[in-house]
Amino acid sequence: MNFITFSEVKLRQFTEAVFLKMGCPAQDASLATDVLLKSDLRGIDSHGVARLSGYVRLWEKERINAHPNIKVVHETYTTATVDGDAGLGLVVAPFAMKIAIEKAKIYGSGWVAVKNSNHFGIAGYHALLAVEQDMIGISMTNASPLVAPTYASERLLGTNPMCYAFPAGKYPPVVVDMATAAAANGKLEIAQRANKPIPEGWAQDKDGKTTTDANGLKEGGSLLPLGSDKEHGSHKGYGLGAAVDILSAVLSGANYGPWVPPFVAFLEPSANPVGEGVGHFFGAMRVDGFRPNQEFKDHLDNWISRFKNAKTVNPNKKVVIPGEPEFDFENERKKNGIPLIDAVVNDLNELAQKLNIPSLS
Amino acid sequence: MNFITFSEVKLRQFTEAVFLKMGCPAQDASLATDVLLKSDLRGIDSHGVARLSGYVRLWEKERINAHPNIKVVHETYTTATVDGDAGLGLVVAPFAMKIAIEKAKIYGSGWVAVKNSNHFGIAGYHALLAVEQDMIGISMTNASPLVAPTYASERLLGTNPMCYAFPAGKYPPVVVDMATAAAANGKLEIAQRANKPIPEGWAQDKDGKTTTDANGLKEGGSLLPLGSDKEHGSHKGYGLGAAVDILSAVLSGANYGPWVPPFVAFLEPSANPVGEGVGHFFGAMRVDGFRPNQEFKDHLDNWISRFKNAKTVNPNKKVVIPGEPEFDFENERKKNGIPLIDAVVNDLNELAQKLNIPSLS
Repeated sequence: MNFITFSEVKLRQFTEAVFLKMGCPAQDASLATDVLLKSDLRGIDSHGVARLSGYVRLWEKERINAHPNIKVVHETYTTATVDGDAGLGLVVAPFAMKIAIEKAKIYGSGWVAVKNSNHFGIAGYHALLAVEQDMIGISMTNASPLVAPTYASERLLGTNPMCYAFPAGKYPPVVVDMATAAAANGKLEIAQRANKPIPEGWAQDKDGKTTTDANGLKEGGSLLPLGSDKEHGSHKGYGLGAAVDILSAVLSGANYGPWVPPFVAFLEPSANPVGEGVGHFFGAMRVDGFRPNQEFKDHLDNWISRFKNAKTVNPNKKVVIPGEPEFDFENERKKNGIPLIDAVVNDLNELAQKLNIPSLS
Repeated sequence: MNFITFSEVKLRQFTEAVFLKMGCPAQDASLATDVLLKSDLRGIDSHGVARLSGYVRLWEKERINAHPNIKVVHETYTTATVDGDAGLGLVVAPFAMKIAIEKAKIYGSGWVAVKNSNHFGIAGYHALLAVEQDMIGISMTNASPLVAPTYASERLLGTNPMCYAFPAGKYPPVVVDMATAAAANGKLEIAQRANKPIPEGWAQDKDGKTTTDANGLKEGGSLLPLGSDKEHGSHKGYGLGAAVDILSAVLSGANYGPWVPPFVAFLEPSANPVGEGVGHFFGAMRVDGFRPNQEFKDHLDNWISRFKNAKTVNPNKKVVIPGEPEFDFENERKKNGIPLIDAVVNDLNELAQKLNIPSLS
């Protein structure tokens, strides 16, 4: 596996050119690029430009609308439901989060459920939009089924991530951004490529038996919820995944559970959908709706400092603050560029050829 | 271990008499009783009347104020911070949740952070107050430190539970009510009494080494976050516990992290507190702020029905809907009474003698 490193600017130009070729309005192309690049910058390589050709394939199959008419279809002072009109989740999600933020500016908090959307990139991007305004940001999405609830031998939930982001003072924001499965699908794919077994507790085979075979998922198995088995609290991971699904889709009118349409274009969506597209849920709360901003930030700094300096098992391995590794990655990669594995570079170059734009390398 | 079964009415009368003896106003005694009994009815025996003498001991040490002046100290249209005045969490929490509900009635949603409170019973009780009003209820609390973050060898977080509750149609509400640790302390206590080892992944000893000794926690060890170890996502359980701590305490002005005062009266609170008492966080969102109630309920029923009928590993073990076991317990125990283990009955009878009220049995 070889890496080629690209500057942020270079990758932005390329990504934006792809979205423009899809027919996205300039503003949308720029926004979608920003969301994808943020993922690569933050070291979440699975959710960045590595997915770009996947979005294009969905657009080719007319499952992504490059010219969506995104609109609010239901609202109160502090709540709203947004219809994404099958647009890019990368564009629909910031639209919805901004409504939550505008409502919070006036009323203290804002909450937006979204239907008829697509994959929205990293949850953290959207939650951080609120943090920039001294608000607490909350963001979640459902996703196509890969996870079996406790006791089940079929996939009923996506890896359904949830994110809570908090503005700190002298430290970077605290960003809890996590899938509700024990391990991400990307980790299984790495083990597959390396022909290595996976730890027990990540996946089960098609009969529901725990497996260490990285191909078990491909062959009809399922990922396991956070907690891995009942004895270690998998019903909690399943419960969290369920809460994300209900807030994102049952509340908005999107598809839920096994009906969520797949991200990969070669799999067809359900012929009998229970809603429209993929669902998301966003929240923003003004910190000063509870206590003065500076007081909150001072105490959050104190919280962070106490946890960073905790007594550890291994003196060389400090306690990590949620969001800290991603922040460090972002600083480093903004400076030194973003490494992409050659498989991703080849994929992007093929995409360039197909779309008739300059190749990446 | 023997059980003695009491009727709900009998236990209510007894519990209310205890709170009245502490000097609680009649309305507060009745409310606190309702919260504790709900826990016993729902089968969460660790959080019901088994804790009654613990509350009394805190009151004797003047760490619980039986006559609190609970008040809103900061607010916007949809957010508020409540000072619990060191009152019973069992009384402070419903007070705060009702403010969230009143705000939601007018503005669509309401969010209340609480400082200067105490143990609030089960999170589910408070979230369900919102469900009765066709709202989504959210409730969480921090708690005294028992859990070590990933890589740490000291206790920095409580078992910090979070609850999401949703109103369904023909089915009981979906209630995700879960501690963010891999296993509850109560489970370790059961293993201690039975002199049995605990599974790996529940706790670590004082040096941060994983242990199967049920006494490891007592001897200076820690509980592990949901996920158990880094490889299985313990950083996610730690992140969730952190989010609960920040929302409950950094936002409200309560104590957080290692500073949260202990529930047990024989341990003293920190001499250098960073806030006031224990913290909670509550939210209520009107379902019809997003889509018509009936539509939501019909789809949630469909969600429940699909999950209940999932293909399972063992055909005799169906997928459990979050909140379903507690609902079944409640129906059964309302009819047949609440079984208490003899140790709890003895403890309550001693309490009766001390307070000069009729004993339980």
